[in-house]
Amino acid sequence: MTIPNPKITTGELPSSRKIYVNGNLYPEIRVPLREISVHPTAGEPPLPVYDSSGPYTDSNSLPDIRQGLPGVRQDWIIGRGDVEPYQGRNTQDADNGFVKGDRLTPEFPVKPRAYRAKEGKAVTQLAYARAGIVTPEMEFVAIRENQLREPISGPRDGNDFGANIPDYVTPEFVRDEIAAGRAIIPANINHPEIEPMIIGRNFLVKINANMGTSAVTSSMEEEVDKLVWAIRWGADTVMDLSTGRNIHNTREWIIRNSPVPIGTVPIYQALEKVNGVAEDLTWEVFRDTLIEQAEQGVDYFTIHAGVRLHMVPMTVGRVTGIVSRGGSIMAKWCLHHHKESFLYTHFAEICDICRAYDVSFSLGDGLRPGSIADANDEAQFAELETLGVLTKIAWAKDCQVMIEGPGHVAMHKIKENMDKQLECCHEAPFYTLGPLTTDIAPGYDHITSGIGAAMIGWFGCAMLCYVTPKEHLGLPDRDDVKIGVITYKIAAHAADLAKGMPGAQRRDDALSRARFEFRWEDQFNLSLDPETARDFHDQTLPKEAHKVAHFCSMCGPKFCSMRISHDIRAEAQKDGMEAMAAKFRNGGDLYVPVDDETDA
Amino acid sequence: MTIPNPKITTGELPSSRKIYVNGNLYPEIRVPLREISVHPTAGEPPLPVYDSSGPYTDSNSLPDIRQGLPGVRQDWIIGRGDVEPYQGRNTQDADNGFVKGDRLTPEFPVKPRAYRAKEGKAVTQLAYARAGIVTPEMEFVAIRENQLREPISGPRDGNDFGANIPDYVTPEFVRDEIAAGRAIIPANINHPEIEPMIIGRNFLVKINANMGTSAVTSSMEEEVDKLVWAIRWGADTVMDLSTGRNIHNTREWIIRNSPVPIGTVPIYQALEKVNGVAEDLTWEVFRDTLIEQAEQGVDYFTIHAGVRLHMVPMTVGRVTGIVSRGGSIMAKWCLHHHKESFLYTHFAEICDICRAYDVSFSLGDGLRPGSIADANDEAQFAELETLGVLTKIAWAKDCQVMIEGPGHVAMHKIKENMDKQLECCHEAPFYTLGPLTTDIAPGYDHITSGIGAAMIGWFGCAMLCYVTPKEHLGLPDRDDVKIGVITYKIAAHAADLAKGMPGAQRRDDALSRARFEFRWEDQFNLSLDPETARDFHDQTLPKEAHKVAHFCSMCGPKFCSMRISHDIRAEAQKDGMEAMAAKFRNGGDLYVPVDDETDA
Repeated sequence: MTIPNPKITTGELPSSRKIYVNGNLYPEIRVPLREISVHPTAGEPPLPVYDSSGPYTDSNSLPDIRQGLPGVRQDWIIGRGDVEPYQGRNTQDADNGFVKGDRLTPEFPVKPRAYRAKEGKAVTQLAYARAGIVTPEMEFVAIRENQLREPISGPRDGNDFGANIPDYVTPEFVRDEIAAGRAIIPANINHPEIEPMIIGRNFLVKINANMGTSAVTSSMEEEVDKLVWAIRWGADTVMDLSTGRNIHNTREWIIRNSPVPIGTVPIYQALEKVNGVAEDLTWEVFRDTLIEQAEQGVDYFTIHAGVRLHMVPMTVGRVTGIVSRGGSIMAKWCLHHHKESFLYTHFAEICDICRAYDVSFSLGDGLRPGSIADANDEAQFAELETLGVLTKIAWAKDCQVMIEGPGHVAMHKIKENMDKQLECCHEAPFYTLGPLTTDIAPGYDHITSGIGAAMIGWFGCAMLCYVTPKEHLGLPDRDDVKIGVITYKIAAHAADLAKGMPGAQRRDDALSRARFEFRWEDQFNLSLDPETARDFHDQTLPKEAHKVAHFCSMCGPKFCSMRISHDIRAEAQKDGMEAMAAKFRNGGDLYVPVDDETDA
Repeated sequence: MTIPNPKITTGELPSSRKIYVNGNLYPEIRVPLREISVHPTAGEPPLPVYDSSGPYTDSNSLPDIRQGLPGVRQDWIIGRGDVEPYQGRNTQDADNGFVKGDRLTPEFPVKPRAYRAKEGKAVTQLAYARAGIVTPEMEFVAIRENQLREPISGPRDGNDFGANIPDYVTPEFVRDEIAAGRAIIPANINHPEIEPMIIGRNFLVKINANMGTSAVTSSMEEEVDKLVWAIRWGADTVMDLSTGRNIHNTREWIIRNSPVPIGTVPIYQALEKVNGVAEDLTWEVFRDTLIEQAEQGVDYFTIHAGVRLHMVPMTVGRVTGIVSRGGSIMAKWCLHHHKESFLYTHFAEICDICRAYDVSFSLGDGLRPGSIADANDEAQFAELETLGVLTKIAWAKDCQVMIEGPGHVAMHKIKENMDKQLECCHEAPFYTLGPLTTDIAPGYDHITSGIGAAMIGWFGCAMLCYVTPKEHLGLPDRDDVKIGVITYKIAAHAADLAKGMPGAQRRDDALSRARFEFRWEDQFNLSLDPETARDFHDQTLPKEAHKVAHFCSMCGPKFCSMRISHDIRAEAQKDGMEAMAAKFRNGGDLYVPVDDETDA
């Protein structure tokens, strides 16, 4: 059987190199950061930035897709002594939609051993945190969040709406936030390849990129390529929303090659196993699917257990009904059987499974609004309250939890969503799709939602699920994935700035200094997308000489405000600023305010 | 001499037709609207939407660029009996940068007569409003703002932050807002071709598109094409920021073919007349340039009169100094001559000129921040206070005024900008560039700024100046102009929704109904950019058959939440919703909230 070796994009970003920072509690951990160097004339050290791209941007250790990534966490997991290897579930034809022969995506060449918690053990980061244990994962994310910055104290330029953002992130602070349920580290014991990351209101705002094959189109090679592409531009987690066939084998290729947590919506695969007939779904089929995915190493499950029978009629009067796939599937099941869904009735057993592998919950908002008209309605908030109840149950089982949120919400209703989530769900991290702030711009919903995402991130949302330009219209291709990721990196960073995250403004300042000093290359290299910045510049001023030009490419030399500012600065220094300032103040006022009579 | 006939894009948008609404006070006025028809199965009337595109989207009256547009306002202007034709200023070689022969942009074929106010008359909309006169322009914008909607009363879904938004826009309300200085109708008596529009916090949020030739590139044909292209997608006003040569002739082509108000920054042309040496600028050169442009019909002037000598030192410690071209030019002039700028010392005379032609002021923010680090600093707010003083002076002279704003501002500082502007400038309309909410994404600054624009529009900003993807990097081409305009239409509409503008949600609801009912064509046609929406859909599902497909192109049939929602709705109706709801509520709670002890 031929084993494909997908073409993927690797190598450092311009003027960047990968560095690794060791731990103190755990010297063996190596936290990756990207260092961006600037031109010597700047007299500035390289800028360290958060780096989710994994080994793919380290030329010294480029991965072989057919081998998968090194299991950097393997020793930590086994070292805790609370897990055991076992003969995992055998792959069944149904797992790949009964495809055979050439149409079957080849199995991943290396089949890792499945691990689970020893009898009675809870192997979740939450359980460890509650036991007072600072895990390597916790120290890892602490170092990662700080990005080598110094502790910053004193008053902050920002408004965090009552969050508890520390001057400096310590491993102990991380443990405490996880113990309180305010943050999670999605990290399945069967996904040792990940570089741990944390999702919580008091940490940097994260973003998720969705991908996945569907009945309509796309292949395994494309998916691995999209994964590597998405994290190259900054995706912190990736959700595999595959439907159709080959789900199991495709997912194995993705997980084994992913340095970021992978999330799924298990009900999608379960539905495939019953040939797409929602009514035929059973707890047994679903349970088996959870085990299958937990053994593969899925880091978080979207579970739509909040959709309850009595809420379904609340959606009938809506403009767009139920727009969550999982939500609509469960609503239909509830209606057909006239009873509560097995996700709800068996929730405690789902917790037991998650607890044995440390799969985090992403409690799904199956009744999220799909239009401006349906935002913040009875159905949406009824479900949110149920999610709060389920959060407590999951916590009682030592499971990590985040809560999914809308959707389509006009700007004036976004804060209400955030506040209600904090209240109903006891400060469990919020993870929202957008929200889209208007319905009228299909083709530009990365923008309609980027506006809402930036705002809800500022208000306290911990992770933002990207929306691509293809939303509502089609399946995102490689370019759409990149545009979606960059748009959401913008939203997340704008939120970090507004929250006053210490150090967040370092990159803005470095880029603005480069801009003011006409260091064009530095301006490109410090940006979120150096390739596009350079390309746009070259469309107007292609010559290399222009990259050292002391004028802005928009205005031309005579009209360059920044060049003139330099002249002003020079003259000001020549004059002695203070003297000058004083002299100027004596200029006196030619115009005194006109009193109100004059403009009747 | 050959007279070029630029290739421009004309004709209706898909499934749309131009309609005209007559006035009551003035039956002869014809207010253009676009009617978007939907599929008969919808059982809905066509949706009337605001239309800034002019006759170019009316196949029954396509303009000839070489003739210019009809002077729809000519009779109104002359009918008021307060203007007189006169022998205007002769075009001088300096007006076009001394170009000759082939390099000279041909003059516009038809030279219209110049008008000015009769001795002692104020011909501004503000003067009429104060005199209690409801002009045709005022009734025109009232009809235009309502978009044929019914008066909507009762509680509003939105937060207007203390604005005074009426249930229905009457001509008298328009007059009152203009008289109070809270709104302006930019409408030079020498630009009779415009379809009047209004800029004010209590009206729909408007957007401006910048264009213009520069020393670096571009021609007259391109500019006229860009103008028509920008208004086709929704630009409410256009600023001609041309520098370099041929400024006068290019502007004539633009104004004669523009149904939207045209703004300029006269200091740019004045600087060309003194060969780009800021220190050589004089009041005489500037004054002559104002007359030149007022006679051509420029509707609003950006005047950087707020940049005062003593403020210049405040910018020396900034990360990006002064980033406004006009601001830097005047700052340099002040510094060199060690005195207040002629814009400030001669401001009263500038008012007299604007008063004689009804050129509105756009008081420039010459000291706006060019980076996150410089936002809301001493220099920015010192200038804003001076702009408030100048506003009162202009009002005392019966001149219409709006105030320009930043720039680069993190989200948490945007509201402060809006509130301070309302306070310092006595509720004169605010007109902002963005603001950009981070500095780190050159190549995507339409998005970094679209976020800030939506927010400040919600908070009360009256007009949003677009930013294109090329900002900071190069000159926008046709595609950039479209992306910039659509992005800002999104921001403006999101703001209208959040403010609770009556009727604003009609389009969202119509599109969402189309989405829920799988009326794909309607979904495309009701969107801001039907071409892109259709193109994206076809990339995934090219077949015509798919345009009637009852499933979403992203999920495929089995996973289409909306299709399932229809099944649910059907079943619900079958059951009788009320009975069902009641039955469901008896489902009872399986999980009772876990009390707090359990999650220590």
